[in-house]
Amino acid sequence: PAERTADHAASIWVEFTTLAAETKAVNLGQGFPDSPAPKFVTDLLENLSKQPELTAAHQYTRGYGHPMLVDILAKMYSHFYNVQVDPMNEVLVTVGAYLSLYYAFLGWVNKGDEVLIIEPAYDCYYPQVKFAGGVPVPIVMNLAEGATSASQFTIDFDDMEKKINKKTKMLVINNPHNPTGKLFTRQELEKLAEIAKKHNLIVIADEVYEFHVWDKNDMVRFASLPGMYERTISIGSAGKAFSVTGWKLGWAVGPKQLLEPLKAIHQNCVFTCSTPTQMAIAQAFQLDWPKFLNDPKNSYLATGLSDELRDKRDKLARMLEEGNFRPIIPDAGYFMLADYSHLKEGLKLATEQDPDDFVFSRWLCREKKLAVIPPSAFYSSREQKEKNCNMVRLCYFKKNDTLDAAEVILKKLG
Amino acid sequence: PAERTADHAASIWVEFTTLAAETKAVNLGQGFPDSPAPKFVTDLLENLSKQPELTAAHQYTRGYGHPMLVDILAKMYSHFYNVQVDPMNEVLVTVGAYLSLYYAFLGWVNKGDEVLIIEPAYDCYYPQVKFAGGVPVPIVMNLAEGATSASQFTIDFDDMEKKINKKTKMLVINNPHNPTGKLFTRQELEKLAEIAKKHNLIVIADEVYEFHVWDKNDMVRFASLPGMYERTISIGSAGKAFSVTGWKLGWAVGPKQLLEPLKAIHQNCVFTCSTPTQMAIAQAFQLDWPKFLNDPKNSYLATGLSDELRDKRDKLARMLEEGNFRPIIPDAGYFMLADYSHLKEGLKLATEQDPDDFVFSRWLCREKKLAVIPPSAFYSSREQKEKNCNMVRLCYFKKNDTLDAAEVILKKLG
Ligand SMILES: CSCCC(=O)C(=O)O
Ligand SMILES: CSCCC(=O)C(=O)O
Repeated sequence: PAERTADHAASIWVEFTTLAAETKAVNLGQGFPDSPAPKFVTDLLENLSKQPELTAAHQYTRGYGHPMLVDILAKMYSHFYNVQVDPMNEVLVTVGAYLSLYYAFLGWVNKGDEVLIIEPAYDCYYPQVKFAGGVPVPIVMNLAEGATSASQFTIDFDDMEKKINKKTKMLVINNPHNPTGKLFTRQELEKLAEIAKKHNLIVIADEVYEFHVWDKNDMVRFASLPGMYERTISIGSAGKAFSVTGWKLGWAVGPKQLLEPLKAIHQNCVFTCSTPTQMAIAQAFQLDWPKFLNDPKNSYLATGLSDELRDKRDKLARMLEEGNFRPIIPDAGYFMLADYSHLKEGLKLATEQDPDDFVFSRWLCREKKLAVIPPSAFYSSREQKEKNCNMVRLCYFKKNDTLDAAEVILKKLG
Repeated sequence: PAERTADHAASIWVEFTTLAAETKAVNLGQGFPDSPAPKFVTDLLENLSKQPELTAAHQYTRGYGHPMLVDILAKMYSHFYNVQVDPMNEVLVTVGAYLSLYYAFLGWVNKGDEVLIIEPAYDCYYPQVKFAGGVPVPIVMNLAEGATSASQFTIDFDDMEKKINKKTKMLVINNPHNPTGKLFTRQELEKLAEIAKKHNLIVIADEVYEFHVWDKNDMVRFASLPGMYERTISIGSAGKAFSVTGWKLGWAVGPKQLLEPLKAIHQNCVFTCSTPTQMAIAQAFQLDWPKFLNDPKNSYLATGLSDELRDKRDKLARMLEEGNFRPIIPDAGYFMLADYSHLKEGLKLATEQDPDDFVFSRWLCREKKLAVIPPSAFYSSREQKEKNCNMVRLCYFKKNDTLDAAEVILKKLG
């Protein structure tokens, strides 16, 4: 095999999603809703043949994105970023946010270039940077002892600046943040913007949970900060926006010159994304966007999604307390971290090579039939993995039946 | 930008599909059908909600391929290759055949490794091999002077062996072949198998047009040759098989140990493919496969597709002769090459930097409103581009209205 694939252990998703299925556990692991996707969205996919575009809906479309989809995305992000986003040159539709990310690294990272990654971090960042020949440089967030809110995760900006040198090319910001559920404040983002400017960094703003905030005014998109559009590749996800994670449709938005290398990769490696899902998502945005602006109470993206999520977050937090976990209440997104230190003593888990949260999560899945994700998977160094293995990550975007079944298990643990 | 993207000219598809749309030309360029896709296939996508899998149909599925899809693919290819293909370990579902190919290069090619490519060759092979750090080594096929059949494209096997050295890692075979429409004979494939074995090469068998043959017994899949399954990564396409190119679903089939590095890339760079299209394609194969085996007259893959294609091939060949082109009749697939030397003298095309067929194709599209593809795009060296620029490539998988409109244009040319 090629050297780049030398370290090909199964990812956390492969391991825990397989384990959850095998054990038939209640699944609060991987991040996807298990209730039916919004009917107005799936109807659009299922009614394509009733539309005049019948033939075209099932054949190749424009390589960089279906014209209908890039048009509405450009309109939306022009509003969010307060710049004029050109649909033909400044939007690239990709297979999920995953490929936008990977293209960004392939397009901009040369051998030995350093990429700043705020830890904990979504696990695919590291291998993707390495596949591109780059060196991931973790910037570990601190969490105050006894913290109860994801907002208590903080960046040590001085330490961050110390890690910047001539090889530093890029900074990846994930906001709202996975796995913590932290929503970065305007002040924090302005500080990151200042650093990006000072050191001339390209910023990857992975904002796939941008609509998963309780009050949409709290979401500060990085590219909306003064001077930042020019240096930022913003990444979004239709799967997350419309709760159809299985559609695997995402996008990168940014200035033409920043997107061009991504397109060079895309045109030869994928060429184009699925036409029917692009058309359905374009139509879903066309329906929802006017409501987002003028009738937010009836907009899925403005309130429908987040109202549902907030209720579920509150429910899971209560359940975790009943179970003697200490939840870290998230500001946004699908996920909640919870400390299980109180439980640990009584449990006498066998020690293994793996960090404690892996052992605990496997035990919870196999013995108690509750699937969660061990967050040490989101740290890159042995040291940080060992320091951060008293928690589990739970996904609360699950139907009430699922949450109720989890509650029964949690209560017995507590 | 990263060095790997330095040469990022727009691909032939970006240029000519855009030009065809802008000029509103009759489009015989890019390879996709413009008649409605088979209704039994699109119905499956549009009826997902009527099925018990409702919820799951729109969320993430198994990363390496939906269980239903890998199951039926393993069954089919077990039959074709006469080996036991393990659905869980020997099939990887990808975003189109494009990504199976790219993963194969990324997974097996190290810096400086050489990859044999039979020319003319589908244009994405070269940049993909280069993105992986490899060196494409063209093996140019010969075409007899005055040839009228794609079967007259032949490989000089002695020349091929001379190009093999210690760095040679891989051989890419595209059968049925794009752009020529050649179907390799068993004898030719056996010779390639012998060479692969002698020099211990991994073979990429790009067989996306495997069902596009007039008599299915003529299609010799490379992995079915004695001893070849073990060294072959076979690549297929649902978009081509079921005439839904816009669904962008493909797969790689091969022994576990050959696929493992591809999975290492996939799990971190894409993670999983679209669930609804995977489910619909799985069901389409489930419906068609028993007929393919026992009732071929009613099977889309056994006869439906190829009967339609053969009629269209014959029609286009007649039309080209009326237009004073010399068609090279294809054995299989979507495409036909045609020599336009007879027309050239009268045309007085401006000479440009580009090979003559590019100039001719642009003129044909802009001035005569007929879009085709210049085949010199499928050669890698300046020398071969200049030697092979008296032809155009036409796609005949178009509805009769489109072919009739093309006929009017061709007649006027002739
Ligand atoms: C690999 S599936 C992606 C799901 C997700 O975003 C998560 O669970 O964090
Ligand atoms: C880049 S689209 C693929 C179409 C195709 O296979 C072809 O036209 O050769």
